[in-house]
Amino acid sequence: MQKTELWYRFASCLCTAPEIGISLDISRMRFDDRFFEQMEPAMQKAFAAMADLEKGAIANPDEQRMVGHYWLRNPALAPSNDLRNEIEKTISQVEEFAKKIHSGTITPPGGNLFKNVLVVGIGGSALGPQFVADALASPNDKMRSYFLDNTDPDGMDRVFAELGNQLKQTLVIVISKSGSTKETRNGMLETQAAYERAGLDFSRHAVAVTGEGSELDRLAGSQGWLERFPMWDWVGGRTSVTSAVGLLPAALQGIDIRALLEGAKVCDESTRRPVTMQNQAALMALMWHYATNGRGEKDMVMLPYKDRLLLFSRYLQQLIMESLGKELDLDGKQASQGLTVYGNKGSTDQHAYVQQLREGVANFFVTFIEVLQDRESSSMQVEKGITSGDFLFGFLQGTRTALYEKGRESMTLTVERIDSRTIGALIALFERCVGLYASLININAYHQPGVEAGKKAAGVVIALQLEVVDLLERRRQLLTADEIAAMLGRPEEAETLFTILRHLAANQDRGVEAIRGTKPTEWQFRIRAAAQP
Amino acid sequence: MQKTELWYRFASCLCTAPEIGISLDISRMRFDDRFFEQMEPAMQKAFAAMADLEKGAIANPDEQRMVGHYWLRNPALAPSNDLRNEIEKTISQVEEFAKKIHSGTITPPGGNLFKNVLVVGIGGSALGPQFVADALASPNDKMRSYFLDNTDPDGMDRVFAELGNQLKQTLVIVISKSGSTKETRNGMLETQAAYERAGLDFSRHAVAVTGEGSELDRLAGSQGWLERFPMWDWVGGRTSVTSAVGLLPAALQGIDIRALLEGAKVCDESTRRPVTMQNQAALMALMWHYATNGRGEKDMVMLPYKDRLLLFSRYLQQLIMESLGKELDLDGKQASQGLTVYGNKGSTDQHAYVQQLREGVANFFVTFIEVLQDRESSSMQVEKGITSGDFLFGFLQGTRTALYEKGRESMTLTVERIDSRTIGALIALFERCVGLYASLININAYHQPGVEAGKKAAGVVIALQLEVVDLLERRRQLLTADEIAAMLGRPEEAETLFTILRHLAANQDRGVEAIRGTKPTEWQFRIRAAAQP
Repeated sequence: MQKTELWYRFASCLCTAPEIGISLDISRMRFDDRFFEQMEPAMQKAFAAMADLEKGAIANPDEQRMVGHYWLRNPALAPSNDLRNEIEKTISQVEEFAKKIHSGTITPPGGNLFKNVLVVGIGGSALGPQFVADALASPNDKMRSYFLDNTDPDGMDRVFAELGNQLKQTLVIVISKSGSTKETRNGMLETQAAYERAGLDFSRHAVAVTGEGSELDRLAGSQGWLERFPMWDWVGGRTSVTSAVGLLPAALQGIDIRALLEGAKVCDESTRRPVTMQNQAALMALMWHYATNGRGEKDMVMLPYKDRLLLFSRYLQQLIMESLGKELDLDGKQASQGLTVYGNKGSTDQHAYVQQLREGVANFFVTFIEVLQDRESSSMQVEKGITSGDFLFGFLQGTRTALYEKGRESMTLTVERIDSRTIGALIALFERCVGLYASLININAYHQPGVEAGKKAAGVVIALQLEVVDLLERRRQLLTADEIAAMLGRPEEAETLFTILRHLAANQDRGVEAIRGTKPTEWQFRIRAAAQP
Repeated sequence: MQKTELWYRFASCLCTAPEIGISLDISRMRFDDRFFEQMEPAMQKAFAAMADLEKGAIANPDEQRMVGHYWLRNPALAPSNDLRNEIEKTISQVEEFAKKIHSGTITPPGGNLFKNVLVVGIGGSALGPQFVADALASPNDKMRSYFLDNTDPDGMDRVFAELGNQLKQTLVIVISKSGSTKETRNGMLETQAAYERAGLDFSRHAVAVTGEGSELDRLAGSQGWLERFPMWDWVGGRTSVTSAVGLLPAALQGIDIRALLEGAKVCDESTRRPVTMQNQAALMALMWHYATNGRGEKDMVMLPYKDRLLLFSRYLQQLIMESLGKELDLDGKQASQGLTVYGNKGSTDQHAYVQQLREGVANFFVTFIEVLQDRESSSMQVEKGITSGDFLFGFLQGTRTALYEKGRESMTLTVERIDSRTIGALIALFERCVGLYASLININAYHQPGVEAGKKAAGVVIALQLEVVDLLERRRQLLTADEIAAMLGRPEEAETLFTILRHLAANQDRGVEAIRGTKPTEWQFRIRAAAQP
């Protein structure tokens, strides 16, 4: 297509939503004129399904749950007064709690103010809060955010070392919807221990965000934590960032959560319109369908040209891949669906992998994000008449052009600036896009049946560890993995036993000794002599 | 395959390299017995090509350059005494400079010690240093590392705000091989301006790592910067982490660079052996070939179960995708090669996208990294007999099993611990794997012809901006993009002009005003009245 034609394609299909300050350009996707016509019936069906969902229909049939994240920013939509009140009450609770912390109405036992927030959570309880915290960080923040988002002991030690003697001015938010996520439980226990080592009373520093009556909820209650905030079963982890999960850390940091909610609400309104060509979420969903044949045949490369949006693709990996990556469709048929997402930021990534994007495997399409406002203050010139921001802009345009020349497709989201409102809107935009696209490909976007298998298999490993350590403590002799497996009556578990013991032996304090062999079958293990009673 | 069979497969093909503390398990890749036999001639050819390269053959024919990153950690291999001396001299120069900074022999003008390092660089001049800095950070670090790795004005402001009044104790390293990378030049100019605003003499805080005689080299010379370190044309940006590019920031942070070089050297020796089954780099390269049919048909998901390795996949994106993502093979034939890499860390990513990996599109294979040592100190129990690290281990094993059950393939690299030596070895392992794989698929891994197009197209945009601003300053009237394009005699550039002006108008200080229309064709622009002289 010639440049002039492209300009008219750009101009005619640019989808603007001035109320949220976002526009979407799909001119560099090479769909043909009939595509929209063909897809319109499916799109209308998707709009209808979304409308039902928003009214409280059971949109997650496997788990027999409503899907209510849209109510969080517009409680008037909630299907009952009780739900509406709960949502509103929680937003107020978050605001009041943050005010008390900031003003010193609630202080740590030693006096002074709380200065840091340590969020303990994983997945939906970390990716959203991390994205928001980083995207909206400012030198004027009231508190500084830290995260424990894994069960890596060394990773936790790093965060504790970073906090150092500031632990006493650190507020800990433990976030777990189910209240029983192992990584989060472990992070909480290790944090509690770090407070104890520092002679501090953890319960005077801790708050919980969790489902009512959960294990975590009961613990927080019995230990008298500072406060508890609710999570509801009608909010999925990956869409929980506009619930207390995202709002509490944000409010504590000093982020304008009302503006964030307002951005999400206005975007919801804008993308609720069942007029495809005027609906950015619908257009994006259609482009995903077009680019991947509705089967995830291409990856989506997220390239925001803005450092603040570095974590957006990590957030979207969960929102998109966990929602869409499903084995079966809603009719129970094999579908092997999904949409792979990766990317960091431009122009940095141009120096990493744009070589492959332009010349290599054509297995992707790009979603650029352009942010029009360069910075808060005015800019110096780095060349006559040109600023650093002009270069950032130029590199985005240049890459978009260079990719198009080689037949690589892209969309571009242009946003006025990064602020609470825009971040709220971007979150809502992708949430709705995922919902609509899930309808187009006929899958349940709100469950995650594949996640259990890994957890369950991990549970088997943990149980086996207890068995093998017990055995070695009873048999004080050198044994191979095969011998141990036989003794346990589990000959098929020799490999798992080998890896368990190799891991324990690498950690002095665990009391297991390994005599290495050339092959794993030749390694021998026993309880270390020094550890014998 | 049954569990017992899998254990024997695991035991028989586990490739251990005790000298670098790494082992590679390929038992969960479903290649059949004949695969290695079929590939052996190609593999031997790859070993031979690598041997030639290491002896100084022109391995980058397009640019007529030697490829010498292996000499950096074993200068005795360099093809001439001059090169050897240069390498050795530079390592000593790095060490001596770091010693002077740490001891206060070199101090900032106001006295006191340099406490922070700010690295200004992008791509190969940032990804390696960032990975090393994060992977090896310790509470005992002598200096703290910061990075400016983009031309995002707001991103730079954030780093300056973070440094605050510590700028006076901050040493700036500007890294650019060519000395003319725009992002880095801009970062340097903005940093210089920040120092000036703080009343500080930038040249007394600055060092350069760059090619001799480059623009940056000359600037550093003329301004009397503290020191200059060389980069050579026989080291590519993406393999420069064991040159001054990576060593200088690492040494300043307090990282043991001799151990890092030693790890890389020993890994080079181990992976130089032309015995496929005993060579981890060769086995990984073969697995890439097997999994992707030698055509990049699947993505590689990197899943290190260790927070310290979070940035490894970003580092590998450049090393792998920029090396392998090529349009033409060495015979000039259309190849569209590459290998897509993404991932963050486990078990965190299990809560993001393992749902899709297990159930969704089967468009990937996984490389797990297991780190045996959990932490420096001993661990508390989070359940009877079980630590946080046991859970981390269990989740890795569980996910590996859960994926295999569903026919999803994986490899596992097991490393004893994360220290300078291991990080050096991991870098060298993947460098050699890329080199060998490039031979297998017959491409030049050492050039990046596709990167220029985006830069060039960006240059066109920048030039057009100067033209349009000049025009608007002469014609003080409201004009549409089409009108401006016509006046410039460039009707085909209307879209670029529109985007240029939309960007300028969003930044108050740029003096351009936009009267928005419904369609881009209807927007009008002019120089803002207040900005008129």
